[in-house]
Amino acid sequence: MNASENELKNIDELRELMHSDLVNDAAIVIDRMSDEQRSAAVGELPAEEAAELIDHLVEEQAAEILEQLSPDIAASILEELTSDVRADLFAGLDPDSATQILDLMAPEEAEETKELTRYDSESAGGLMVTELLSFDMNETVQGVFDDLAENSDLYRDIDVQYSFVLDEGCLVGVLPMRDLFLAKRSTPLRQLMIADPISVRDDADMSALEDVFDNHHFLGIPVVNSQRELVGVVQRSAMERALAAHDRSDYLKSQGIVGGEEIRSLPVIERARRRLSWLSVNILLNIVAASVIAMFQDTLSSVIALAVFLPIISDMSGCSGNQAVAVSMRELSLGLIRPSELLRVWGKEISVGTINGICLGALVGLAAFLWKADPMLGLVVGLSLCVNTMVAVSIGGMVPLLMKRYDFDPAIASGPILTTITDMCGFFLVLSMASVLLV
Amino acid sequence: MNASENELKNIDELRELMHSDLVNDAAIVIDRMSDEQRSAAVGELPAEEAAELIDHLVEEQAAEILEQLSPDIAASILEELTSDVRADLFAGLDPDSATQILDLMAPEEAEETKELTRYDSESAGGLMVTELLSFDMNETVQGVFDDLAENSDLYRDIDVQYSFVLDEGCLVGVLPMRDLFLAKRSTPLRQLMIADPISVRDDADMSALEDVFDNHHFLGIPVVNSQRELVGVVQRSAMERALAAHDRSDYLKSQGIVGGEEIRSLPVIERARRRLSWLSVNILLNIVAASVIAMFQDTLSSVIALAVFLPIISDMSGCSGNQAVAVSMRELSLGLIRPSELLRVWGKEISVGTINGICLGALVGLAAFLWKADPMLGLVVGLSLCVNTMVAVSIGGMVPLLMKRYDFDPAIASGPILTTITDMCGFFLVLSMASVLLV
Repeated sequence: MNASENELKNIDELRELMHSDLVNDAAIVIDRMSDEQRSAAVGELPAEEAAELIDHLVEEQAAEILEQLSPDIAASILEELTSDVRADLFAGLDPDSATQILDLMAPEEAEETKELTRYDSESAGGLMVTELLSFDMNETVQGVFDDLAENSDLYRDIDVQYSFVLDEGCLVGVLPMRDLFLAKRSTPLRQLMIADPISVRDDADMSALEDVFDNHHFLGIPVVNSQRELVGVVQRSAMERALAAHDRSDYLKSQGIVGGEEIRSLPVIERARRRLSWLSVNILLNIVAASVIAMFQDTLSSVIALAVFLPIISDMSGCSGNQAVAVSMRELSLGLIRPSELLRVWGKEISVGTINGICLGALVGLAAFLWKADPMLGLVVGLSLCVNTMVAVSIGGMVPLLMKRYDFDPAIASGPILTTITDMCGFFLVLSMASVLLV
Repeated sequence: MNASENELKNIDELRELMHSDLVNDAAIVIDRMSDEQRSAAVGELPAEEAAELIDHLVEEQAAEILEQLSPDIAASILEELTSDVRADLFAGLDPDSATQILDLMAPEEAEETKELTRYDSESAGGLMVTELLSFDMNETVQGVFDDLAENSDLYRDIDVQYSFVLDEGCLVGVLPMRDLFLAKRSTPLRQLMIADPISVRDDADMSALEDVFDNHHFLGIPVVNSQRELVGVVQRSAMERALAAHDRSDYLKSQGIVGGEEIRSLPVIERARRRLSWLSVNILLNIVAASVIAMFQDTLSSVIALAVFLPIISDMSGCSGNQAVAVSMRELSLGLIRPSELLRVWGKEISVGTINGICLGALVGLAAFLWKADPMLGLVVGLSLCVNTMVAVSIGGMVPLLMKRYDFDPAIASGPILTTITDMCGFFLVLSMASVLLV
C-alpha cells in the first residue's frame, strides 16, 4: 500500500467513525496522522462533522489544522461551533489566519467572535455562550409560542429551560419556560417573569462564578455587560469543565509541563524546547543547592558514608514538602485558606512534620547505625532528616500561599523553590553537624 | 468572651452567612470550628440550610458531622439532599450510624438510598439523580400539563428540559418539553416522543459516560437497569464534576497525598499517618537506590567531587521523568494512548529525551569541568546525566501505561517507581564510569 492509498484509507476510516458518532475514536485517528494529512482529512468532512471533531481535539492541534485549511473552509467549520468554543479557538490562531477567516464569516458572527475573544478565557465572558432565548418584557405568552414554533430549527441546540426577559436589551427578569404552560396566552412576560434575577458581570472571574453556582442551583447564569445588557449565559457544565481544565493545567505545570498542554503528536523540537525551559531553571537551582556540598569536601572525604545519605535526605525532604504543597494548592482552590494565613498553615504543618520527621529520622538513622555500627553517624543523619522534614513541610505549606499573594503561579514555582531551599538546608544540616561530631 | 459565648457567636455568624446565600463562607466557618462545635452548629440550622451546607463540605468532614448529630436530625438533613449526594454521603458513614439514620428516614427514600449506595461512585448509577420527570407513553399532553400544575412544588429542583416516556417502567422515548407547547392537548405522548433514545446502563463506567456526552449534545442522559427500566438521569455537569474530582485525586496521589483528600482540620495523627504510609515506602526505596552509592565508596573517596553531582543527577532525572509521567497520565485520561502502546510512547519520549539529555548533560558537564578544570570529570558527569535523562523519560513515559495495564493506580505508583529506577541507574552510571576513567 503506498502513501496516498494509506491516506485514503485514513479519510474513509474517519468518515466512518464520525458517521457512527464515535468522535473520540476519530480524534485519535487525527492525532496519529501527519500534519498535512490532518488538515486534508478534516477538510474532506462536511462542515458540521468537521466542527464536531475540531471541538474534541486538544486546542493547539485544532488551531494548527484550521490554520492549514483554506480560509473559506475554516470559516464554514467555525460557524458550526458554539460561540464560546469558536472564540477560544480564534484566540489560539495566528493573527493572519484569524483575520482571513473572519473576513469570510457572516458579518454578524465575525463581529460577535471578535467581541468574545476580548474576554479572558477564565472570565464569565470567556465561558458564556451567546446562544440563548430572550424576549422583550412586553411580549405575550402567545408571542413566545409563535416565536418558538417559527424558529424551532434555530433553537435546536439551545438550552430552553429558562428564557431571559429584557427591557430595551437590559436584563430585567428570568422566565422558567414551564411557567408558560400554565399561563394565559395574552399575559405579557413582565407579569410572569421572576424579576431582578441573579446575574454576573462579563468580567467576573472563575471564583466569583463558582460562588454563584455553589450558592444557587441554577443550571445557567445570565451574563450582563457594564450597561446591564444581556450578553450571554454561562452553563454550569461549562464552569465545571473550565475548573477541571484549570486544575489539570496546575497538575501538568507542577510536574514541569509548562507553556501549554503537551500531546505527543506535537513536533519533537517544540516539545523538547518547552520541557527544557523548565528543566534548565531547575538544573541551575540544583547546582546552587549542590554547591553547599562542595563547601564541605573535607568533611565528606573523612566520612565518605555521608555521600550515601545526601540524596536520601534531598529526596525525602522533597517528598514531605510536596505533600504540603499539594494540600495547600487544594485548600487554596477550595477557598479554605486565604493567601495571608501563613501562620495558620505553618501551625498545621509543623505538627504533622514533627511526627513524620521523628519517624523518618529514626528510620534512616537506624539504617545508618546498623550499616556502619556508628551511633554518631546514625545520630547525624537521623537528626538532619528529622529537622529537614520540619523545614520542608513548613516551606511546602507556605510557598503556594506566598506565590499566590505576590501573583506568581503557585503550580509552576512551588516545586522548584521548595526543593532548592530544602536541599540547601538538608545538605548544610548533615554536613555541618558531621564536621562537628564525626570528623 | 468565654468558650460558650464564642460558640454562640459562631452559630450566629453561620446563620447569617447561610441566610445571605454565602454557603462557601459558611463552609469556611465550619472548617475552623472544633469537631464538637461543628455538629452542634449544623444541628442548629433549619434542615434545608444544613443540607445546603453539608453539600459544600469536603465529604469526610460532612460524614463526621452527620455521625455526631442525633440520628433524627441527620435523617432530616439527608432527606433534603439530592439522591446522588445522599448516596455518596451514606457510603462514607460508619455502618452503625448509617443503619440508625436509614431507620428514621421515609421508607421510600431509605430504600432508594440503599439501592444507590450499591453503585460504584464512578459509575452511571453512582452519578445519576433519581429526580426526573417521567410519564407513561399513553398519557396525553393535557395529562402532563395537569401533572406539572399539580406537582409544581415537587418539581421545583428538577431539570425539566426533557421528560422521559415509559412503557410499563421501561424507557421507550424522550420528550423535549418544548414540543408540548406546539402539540394538541389530546395527543398521547407516544406520538410526540423521540423513540429509542440514547441511554446508558447503570453499571456503565465514567469513560463510557464521557464518550456518550462527547458524542451528543445532551445535558442529561437517562440511565436504565438490566431490565431497561428507567432508574435515573446523569446530568452533564455531574459527569464534569466527577471527572474533575478524579483528576484532582490523581494530582494529590501523585504528590503523596493518599488514602483520601486531606484538609488541615482533620486530626494531626490521622494526617501524619496517611502521609507516612506513602513516605515510609519511599524511604525504603530511597535506601535501596542509595545502596548503589555504598558499593562505590572507594571511587568516591578518591574523587570526592562526585558527591556534589550525585544529588543533581538524581533530582534532574526525576524532573525529566516526571514530565514524561505527566504527559502519559494526561494522554491516558484523554484516551489518546492505549496502555499497550509502549513502543509508540517510548519512540516519542526518547526523541525528546535525547535532545534534552544532550542539553542538560552539556550544561552540568561544563559546570563540572569549569569547577575542577578536569575534562574527564566533566565528561563522566555530563555523559551520565545525558544517558540517564534518556532512561528517565523512557521509564516515565512507559510506567503509567504498565501500571494501568496491570491494574495498579498509575497516579500513586509511577513517581516512586520512576525515581527509584532512575536513581539507581544514575548513581551506577556516574560511579562506574568514574571508577574506570577517573580513579
